Amino acid sequence: LNLLSPDELESRLREIGATRYHRLHPFHKLLHGGKCTRDQVQAWALNRYYYQSMIPVKDASLIARCPDSDTRREWRSRLVDHDGDRKGEGGIARWLRLTDGLQLDRDYVVSLRGLLPATRFAVDAYVHFVRDKTLLEAVASSLTELFSPQIISERIEGMLNNYRFVTPETLAYFSQRPPQAERDSRFALDYVKVNARTAEAQRAVLGALEFKCDVLWAMLDALYHAYVEPRHIPPGAFAPQD
Amino acid sequence: LNLLSPDELESRLREIGATRYHRLHPFHKLLHGGKCTRDQVQAWALNRYYYQSMIPVKDASLIARCPDSDTRREWRSRLVDHDGDRKGEGGIARWLRLTDGLQLDRDYVVSLRGLLPATRFAVDAYVHFVRDKTLLEAVASSLTELFSPQIISERIEGMLNNYRFVTPETLAYFSQRPPQAERDSRFALDYVKVNARTAEAQRAVLGALEFKCDVLWAMLDALYHAYVEPRHIPPGAFAPQD
Repeated sequence: LNLLSPDELESRLREIGATRYHRLHPFHKLLHGGKCTRDQVQAWALNRYYYQSMIPVKDASLIARCPDSDTRREWRSRLVDHDGDRKGEGGIARWLRLTDGLQLDRDYVVSLRGLLPATRFAVDAYVHFVRDKTLLEAVASSLTELFSPQIISERIEGMLNNYRFVTPETLAYFSQRPPQAERDSRFALDYVKVNARTAEAQRAVLGALEFKCDVLWAMLDALYHAYVEPRHIPPGAFAPQD
Repeated sequence: LNLLSPDELESRLREIGATRYHRLHPFHKLLHGGKCTRDQVQAWALNRYYYQSMIPVKDASLIARCPDSDTRREWRSRLVDHDGDRKGEGGIARWLRLTDGLQLDRDYVVSLRGLLPATRFAVDAYVHFVRDKTLLEAVASSLTELFSPQIISERIEGMLNNYRFVTPETLAYFSQRPPQAERDSRFALDYVKVNARTAEAQRAVLGALEFKCDVLWAMLDALYHAYVEPRHIPPGAFAPQD
């Protein structure tokens, strides 16, 4: 890899999104196409809750390693988005309205008792990545947000049209996200375009986005294996019959 | 949970092995029963290589947190088992004889380029667990070795009988392991029986063994999903057609 111009770097990042983002995963096609059972939607929401709940943890660990006030202040808005300004607000609380709407017991969801171990390992891998890699890689790993507005609009439309157990209220999380994701990903994209100034740094940025795509993909692989085909639920994980 | 006697604790640990150890996983039934293709055996050996290669890393991080010389010295024998006394010796080198025998390119195996992301996340979760949890939990998480001699004897017999591409030389790793595993797991079992002196500590010990069973189980779930059914290989992972 030779040194790329900032715009070439952006193209390469968008290419990763076009080929490796979890929008392409068979589980999402089922979910958005109305082919999931309620049990499968429950399993998805329950597992994805752990991802949502750890986002502010990874963002705080990024802020904690950030030497300048401007970047910290900008990144802090992500904490506000997910944790809200008071109890019951913010993205995590809105995600719990989704699991409520799917008739999952809230204490059970929050306890993480029914989580697939593979979900925990993938999400924790993301948290550790952000904590342990360079700040540039930590920022770059957030760039899946570049691709999320599209998947979210497909999701809202597909889920509202296809599942009678889904209402606009239960999907409140998603209707709030696209403008936040656009603002955040624009900042992160500008940051990596300005700060990845060597071929090595650019390679690390591209690798960070691939890593993050792998995290999201592995979460859906695990759901598919446990709840779609061949439905091998690992010992101790959420079992819809219970 | 009330405080258990040391022998009751041992029974509870063995019960976890009887219900959650990966010997019960469908992938192992295929592997040992001769129902895997060579591609599937390759994928298993390639992914498991990463687990093998990280074992001395997790053992060293355990030793690094160990305040007494006796325990460190005892645990050190695991480093010798896996890394050997000179280049080409030890468990990792013997594992590479297995991947060689399966006609996998050694540089490719060692590069980890073809690894399933879920394998990396699961193995790294184990390494982080040993580094970050209490010493007692770190020791307890090794207790899957209590159950490994049985699975290894099933594996050697099943693989030699069923696969013409497997020879006793390629399985050298497994023929060496049972006495090491018996010695190591006896030490670790005695350690937790002596040192888990509160109900809370015993709960942590049981949780650590469950966690470790989840790690091994998740590795096989990922293999099954990618290479058995529905054969959805994640982007970038080992693809036998290549």
